[in-house]
Amino acid sequence: MSDQEVMGLIHRGQAFKNGEVWRPEKKQYFAANLFFESSTRTHKSFEVAEKKLGIDVIDFATATSSVQKGETLYDTVLTMSAIGVDCVVIRHSDENYYDALIQSPTIQCSVINGGDGSGQHPTQCLLDLMTIYEEFGSFKGLNVAIVGDITHSRVAKSNMQMLKRLGAHVYFSGPRQWYDETFDVYGTYLPLDELIGKMDVLMMLRVQHERHDPNESFSKEVYHKKFGLTDDRAKKMKEQAIIMHPAPVNRDVEIADSLVEGLQSRIVRQMTNGVYVRMAILEAILHGKA
Amino acid sequence: MSDQEVMGLIHRGQAFKNGEVWRPEKKQYFAANLFFESSTRTHKSFEVAEKKLGIDVIDFATATSSVQKGETLYDTVLTMSAIGVDCVVIRHSDENYYDALIQSPTIQCSVINGGDGSGQHPTQCLLDLMTIYEEFGSFKGLNVAIVGDITHSRVAKSNMQMLKRLGAHVYFSGPRQWYDETFDVYGTYLPLDELIGKMDVLMMLRVQHERHDPNESFSKEVYHKKFGLTDDRAKKMKEQAIIMHPAPVNRDVEIADSLVEGLQSRIVRQMTNGVYVRMAILEAILHGKA
Amino acid sequence: MSDQEVMGLIHRGQAFKNGEVWRPEKKQYFAANLFFESSTRTHKSFEVAEKKLGIDVIDFATATSSVQKGETLYDTVLTMSAIGVDCVVIRHSDENYYDALIQSPTIQCSVINGGDGSGQHPTQCLLDLMTIYEEFGSFKGLNVAIVGDITHSRVAKSNMQMLKRLGAHVYFSGPRQWYDETFDVYGTYLPLDELIGKMDVLMMLRVQHERHDPNESFSKEVYHKKFGLTDDRAKKMKEQAIIMHPAPVNRDVEIADSLVEGLQSRIVRQMTNGVYVRMAILEAILHGKA
Repeated sequence: MSDQEVMGLIHRGQAFKNGEVWRPEKKQYFAANLFFESSTRTHKSFEVAEKKLGIDVIDFATATSSVQKGETLYDTVLTMSAIGVDCVVIRHSDENYYDALIQSPTIQCSVINGGDGSGQHPTQCLLDLMTIYEEFGSFKGLNVAIVGDITHSRVAKSNMQMLKRLGAHVYFSGPRQWYDETFDVYGTYLPLDELIGKMDVLMMLRVQHERHDPNESFSKEVYHKKFGLTDDRAKKMKEQAIIMHPAPVNRDVEIADSLVEGLQSRIVRQMTNGVYVRMAILEAILHGKA
Repeated sequence: MSDQEVMGLIHRGQAFKNGEVWRPEKKQYFAANLFFESSTRTHKSFEVAEKKLGIDVIDFATATSSVQKGETLYDTVLTMSAIGVDCVVIRHSDENYYDALIQSPTIQCSVINGGDGSGQHPTQCLLDLMTIYEEFGSFKGLNVAIVGDITHSRVAKSNMQMLKRLGAHVYFSGPRQWYDETFDVYGTYLPLDELIGKMDVLMMLRVQHERHDPNESFSKEVYHKKFGLTDDRAKKMKEQAIIMHPAPVNRDVEIADSLVEGLQSRIVRQMTNGVYVRMAILEAILHGKA
Repeated sequence: MSDQEVMGLIHRGQAFKNGEVWRPEKKQYFAANLFFESSTRTHKSFEVAEKKLGIDVIDFATATSSVQKGETLYDTVLTMSAIGVDCVVIRHSDENYYDALIQSPTIQCSVINGGDGSGQHPTQCLLDLMTIYEEFGSFKGLNVAIVGDITHSRVAKSNMQMLKRLGAHVYFSGPRQWYDETFDVYGTYLPLDELIGKMDVLMMLRVQHERHDPNESFSKEVYHKKFGLTDDRAKKMKEQAIIMHPAPVNRDVEIADSLVEGLQSRIVRQMTNGVYVRMAILEAILHGKA
């Protein structure tokens, strides 16, 4: 996506937030949400976005589907396409799962990526960008730190690329073993205490206990003290700086419980904005189909 | 809730049953049903009630949500609020789970209790009251027996309080070990055979096998003979008396199979009325928000 | 059902495919989909069909319902009826489960069979017939082979009966131990290589690994070579012949992967037609209720 396209979606998301109504003319559209991994925020905010646009939603649970009989993702999406679904939102553990779907000459429905393995999570990236843009009106010259489990984070990778492209200065922090030197082209790795006073945006990442070897991991207390946003660290933040997190938050691990719903936190707003950028994406895709 | 508010909801439930239509003006409303414990009746009758009112329904399955990553009830409801859900219906095993939700300054959505642990089940209470009121036109002087597993029953506690307040005479029966002396302030405990001929309403409670130590429990046959509504006992009922049960019924345990769908049973009507009182509750809550 | 009724539903399915709109006047209808066995196609195409007709859909998951407390199918459907559901679509492992439901004087909702054990699967039969009729304009004199796991197939039994009644010549092939002599009244059992060049329709059936003793079963390669539609066999088919399969397909077992989405395959179209025949069935049932 070009910068212009990204900014177009952000502006359209803001328009929806301000009450813009887009209803697919008279045509009835169907969207199916195929979540092969657990999700509350992404799944349910897509569902709200779809229903706000007047799209009929087909829900899908792998546990009660033919996936139990060995049906593949490809054949599941082919079925959705065949029964008239216009667009599918997919979260799946396989990186780049979508390649085979997009290349299929038989599958007619559009595919929206709701997260692939440790790959990308483009709609989370867009809602993060919308939240920053809403706050500062621009990305140029902003100092943004991405802190924590960067290697396992889908959204960190999308965010570092887009933020750099849009003119922000990117910094990284967190455990060294969860950082990868390939990220150096996008920003600078530094200890959190050296960054905290200079940042405009602190993007704290979720410790994904479920993806880690328990032996390599940290106790909650140790992680919080060394790499987390403690109450003490928060006092050193710039007054206008904001705290972000893709959620679910491990309270008192990545961020002190008292800060999660605090004045500088934009975590609730990120979730709210998620609905509106997803409306913008659905509109763009279905408008192309109309 | 005051007696007047209760009667207001019952009358509004009757109005909906008689065809009253209330559609939230032009505004789109969202309700999310968060059932952390198994349910067919309460869950699905809320869903029908919501759809009859034109509310968009967001369904939620704990097994495929971020609850699997350790997300709490509080943060799940915060998410629903953030993505634009106006009201959540919750069933959860923790008693008084709703206190933290109602006190939160960040959570904006209304909370409707669909049952908390062994605590309360207010919408079941209202549908029971509506069913009695529909039958007798008043609660004053009615003899109502609550029979069975009273200590574990959410609805028994709500019912004994409300029935007494509204002027009914409450009686209790069933196994002594499932009765608690704190109930004495609401009514009188007696053997079923002493009560059967005098009651206007027999509220039989479900034996909650899933909540009992198997060693303390009864065989089906023994329970039915000692504490159940057998065909023989039913013959001693007053001609105008009615049989109620919150369901699911263990047929031939609490009530003889032949009586469940019989002439004096109001069990099916209770389920039907459940939709209408839930419409009344949803209307009252969303009307307050409009 | 009479031949005339079957043809009526097929024609109505074609009308819906051509854009016919039927909306239940102003009345709001509710359908509940009760799938006690895994399904993607049948479940989701009923859901699309219902939503295309403007019917409100109540979804149901056994894992989170009162079925977990021991509630029976009968009492689950009684509940759906009581809360105002007009029609239920059921898939259940018990053959003829619907007898008790249809005979109940208390259950008011219509029952649509979405598959019962190894019994019938009438809506799959109708979509197969619609697909053949759409292709050839008639059933008279058509040569149709049903190939594979016939004894375990719900749809094979419905299809052989209806195809014979409508004038087609039915043939059977596949492993002898999965064939039953009672099928002889409907057609002729022959090796696939003797049939392949003469057939107008090849209905390949799914090998239901989940229903077989692993010791009795075949390796994928052996089955494909002996009983499957290989690339080599496909070359011997008549030019106008079509390939059908109820899906999910075990690719390279019943049918070579390269043929599944090929020119002679109607497998995707079968799924599409499934939506339209189900609309025809729902319309017929709800129209009778209006």
